[in-house]
Amino acid sequence: MTQLLVRKVRLPAGNMADILMEGGRFVRIGSGLEVPPGCQVEDGAGALALPGLVEAHTHLDKTLWGMPWYRNEVGPNLTDRIDNERRWRAATGHDARAQSLVLARAFLAAGTTRLRTHVDIDTDAGLRHLHGVVATRDALSAQMDMQIVAFPQSGVLGRPGTEALLNEALRSGADILGGLDPCAIEGDPVRALDLLFGLAQRHGRPLDIHLHEPGSMGAWSLDLILQRTAALGMRGMVTVSHAFCLGDIAERERDALLQRIADLGVVIVTTAPPSRPVPPVAACRAAGVRIVGGNDGIRDTWTPYGSPDMLERAMLIGLRNNFRRDDELAVALDCVTHAAAAACGFQHYGLAPGDRADLVLVAAETVAEAVVARPVRQLVVSAGRVVARNGALA
Amino acid sequence: MTQLLVRKVRLPAGNMADILMEGGRFVRIGSGLEVPPGCQVEDGAGALALPGLVEAHTHLDKTLWGMPWYRNEVGPNLTDRIDNERRWRAATGHDARAQSLVLARAFLAAGTTRLRTHVDIDTDAGLRHLHGVVATRDALSAQMDMQIVAFPQSGVLGRPGTEALLNEALRSGADILGGLDPCAIEGDPVRALDLLFGLAQRHGRPLDIHLHEPGSMGAWSLDLILQRTAALGMRGMVTVSHAFCLGDIAERERDALLQRIADLGVVIVTTAPPSRPVPPVAACRAAGVRIVGGNDGIRDTWTPYGSPDMLERAMLIGLRNNFRRDDELAVALDCVTHAAAAACGFQHYGLAPGDRADLVLVAAETVAEAVVARPVRQLVVSAGRVVARNGALA
Repeated sequence: MTQLLVRKVRLPAGNMADILMEGGRFVRIGSGLEVPPGCQVEDGAGALALPGLVEAHTHLDKTLWGMPWYRNEVGPNLTDRIDNERRWRAATGHDARAQSLVLARAFLAAGTTRLRTHVDIDTDAGLRHLHGVVATRDALSAQMDMQIVAFPQSGVLGRPGTEALLNEALRSGADILGGLDPCAIEGDPVRALDLLFGLAQRHGRPLDIHLHEPGSMGAWSLDLILQRTAALGMRGMVTVSHAFCLGDIAERERDALLQRIADLGVVIVTTAPPSRPVPPVAACRAAGVRIVGGNDGIRDTWTPYGSPDMLERAMLIGLRNNFRRDDELAVALDCVTHAAAAACGFQHYGLAPGDRADLVLVAAETVAEAVVARPVRQLVVSAGRVVARNGALA
Repeated sequence: MTQLLVRKVRLPAGNMADILMEGGRFVRIGSGLEVPPGCQVEDGAGALALPGLVEAHTHLDKTLWGMPWYRNEVGPNLTDRIDNERRWRAATGHDARAQSLVLARAFLAAGTTRLRTHVDIDTDAGLRHLHGVVATRDALSAQMDMQIVAFPQSGVLGRPGTEALLNEALRSGADILGGLDPCAIEGDPVRALDLLFGLAQRHGRPLDIHLHEPGSMGAWSLDLILQRTAALGMRGMVTVSHAFCLGDIAERERDALLQRIADLGVVIVTTAPPSRPVPPVAACRAAGVRIVGGNDGIRDTWTPYGSPDMLERAMLIGLRNNFRRDDELAVALDCVTHAAAAACGFQHYGLAPGDRADLVLVAAETVAEAVVARPVRQLVVSAGRVVARNGALA
C-alpha cells in the first residue's frame, strides 16, 4: 500500500501538523507522526495545506489554452459569441480532446483535483466535443474527478436534432444535463424547460442551467425553474449557473427567491464577473443557499480571460463581493473548496482522515493570504500521489 | 557612454526589432542593428517589448507588503477604515520608509518605472510618512520616477493643524496636493474645496482629489471641483481619483460631466474595483477624457488585495469594463502605460528614439496576451540599465 507522509505543514485552522496518506486516503493528521517503513516523505517546510481545489463551472472543450493567440474581434452580444464560436469551430476543426487535456493538466498543476465542465452539444459538432472530453477524463481518471455536463450552447428548440443528441450524450459519458436562457436564447421558456426537465427526469440526472438573463426576465425564468424543481421532486438535483438576475432585482424579491432556492437545495454557481450584476455571496449564504465558484470559459473565442488557478477565482469572488476581512476571504476560498465539492457532489472530499488524499501546499501564513497572493503551488497531491511540484506537473 | 542592445524583441505593433539604448535613452529601434563596440547585449528571444509600466495611484506608505500577515477584522465603512488605520499606525509605529521601499522595489521588479503615490498627512503622523517616502524616492531616483501627493487621509477641516502640515509638505518634497470627499468626509464641500484649491494655487501645484462619493452626491462634488478648476484657470492641473459617481448616474448627466471634464483637461484615475460602480473607460475616452489606472492601497489595513504588477491592474480594468477584444485590451494596457504617463506628466515616456530607455520584456505574442496572462517580467530596463530579470531585481 503506497504511503506518503507530508511533514510540517500549517493546517487552514493555523496549527502545524504532519499528514499521513495511504491507499489514496488521508489516514492520520497530527504533530510528530512517525515515518512508517518504506514511506515516501515530503517536507512541507511550514507551507499552508489546503484540500484539492474545485472548479464548479468551466468549458474545457472550448479552450485555446496553449495555442497561438486568438485575435478576438467578436461583436458584443451573447448571440454574436455563440455564432462566432460555432463558425470558428467548423472552420478550424478545433480538437476538443487535445485542448481539454492541455487545460485539465494545467488545472491539476495548479491544484484542482475536482472539476465540472460543460461540453458543447449541437447539431454542427454533434457529440465530437463530448467524446474528446470523455477521453480526457479517462486519461486523467487517476488524478482528477471530472463531471461532464451535456450543454446545448446553441439552444435546444431552435435547432431540431439537439434533443436527440442530448439524449445520446447522457448515454455516452455525460453525467449532467445542461441548458441555457429559456427566454433570451430558447425563446419559449415553458417548452424549453419542460423539455430539459423531462429529459433529466427520464435519465435520472441532475440539471445545470446557464441563466444569463438579467433582472426581472431572469427572475421569472428562475421562478419557472424553481416551480419545476418542486413539482418534479428534483430537490438537490438542480444547479443554476451565473444567475446574474439575483444581483439585479430588489432585495425583497431577491430574498424571497433565495428562500425558495435554499428550500429546494438548488445550487448557484457564480463566476463573479466584475462587469455584471452577480448573486451576492454573503446574502446567498445567509439565506442558506449553496453558492460556489467557477471560471466559465478560459481563454477561448468568448473571452481572453480566465485561468486554471482556482485561488485566482477565489480572489475574484472576494473582489467582486468586496470581501476584505479574513473571515470573508475564508468564504471566498470555501466557494472553490468544501462548498463547491459538496454542491457538485464530489465524494470523500476534505482534509480529514478517510477523505481522498488531495492536498495543495502554498507558501502562505493564512487562508486569506493564499487567496490574495495566489502563491505558486509548492506541492499538489492527488489520491495520495504527488502530481505537481512548484507549479509544474511531476 | 553606457550602451545596451536588446535583440530580437516583438514591438507592440507586432514587428520584430532590436533596440539600442545609450545614455539612458532609446537611440535606435530597427531590425538587424549592429553591435557597437563595448555594448552590453541582451537576447530578447522574441519576447514582447513594452514601455515601462506606470502606476498612477497607490499608497506606498501604508503597505504591509512583505510583513507578517495582517489579520483584517475592520468594520465596513470608510470611516471605520480610516480610524482603524490611524489607531493601528500609532500602536505599531509603522515604518513608512522601510515599507515604501519594499513595495517600490517590488513595483520595479514587475516593470513599473513611473509611479504616483499618495502619502498620508495628518495631525497624528505629521510629516513622518512623507519623509519616509521621500527617502525611498531618493534611494530609487536612478531607476524610478516618483510623484508624491500630500494626502490628508483623515480630512482637513475636522483636524485643525492639517492645513499647516499640507503647506509644509508641499515645501518638503511633496509634488502634488491631495484631498478627499468634500461632502462625505469633510462635511463642508465649499469650505474644503476652497481651502484645497487655494493651497494648490499658492504653491502652483496640481491637485489630485480622492472622490469616493456615490451617485448624485459625488456628481455634485465633481461639479464643484470643475467649477473651481475653470474659475481658477487650473486646466490640466486637476486629477479626480476613483470618481465612482461617474458609474452611478444617468448616462445623460454623466456625458454632460464628461464633456466638462474633457474640456478642463481633468484626469480621471480608476482602480476599477469589481464591487463598485466605476467610470466607464470606453465612454470616458470617447468623450475625450483622459482616464488611467492605479491600484489604490496594496495589502494594507484597508485591503488585503492589490499587487505591484501593473499588468494585473490592466487585466482588472479590462475585466471591470468587459473588454474582450484585442483592441479593447490594448486600451486597458494604455491605462497603465502611455495614457498614464501623459496624464501624470511623466516626461520622455515611450518606446521611441529619444524616450527614456524604460523597457519591459514578457513572453507574450500580443499586447492582449500580456494583459490577460501577466507573464513574469523576463527583463526590466530602466534608464538604459537592466534592473530586473525573471521577476527579481538584478
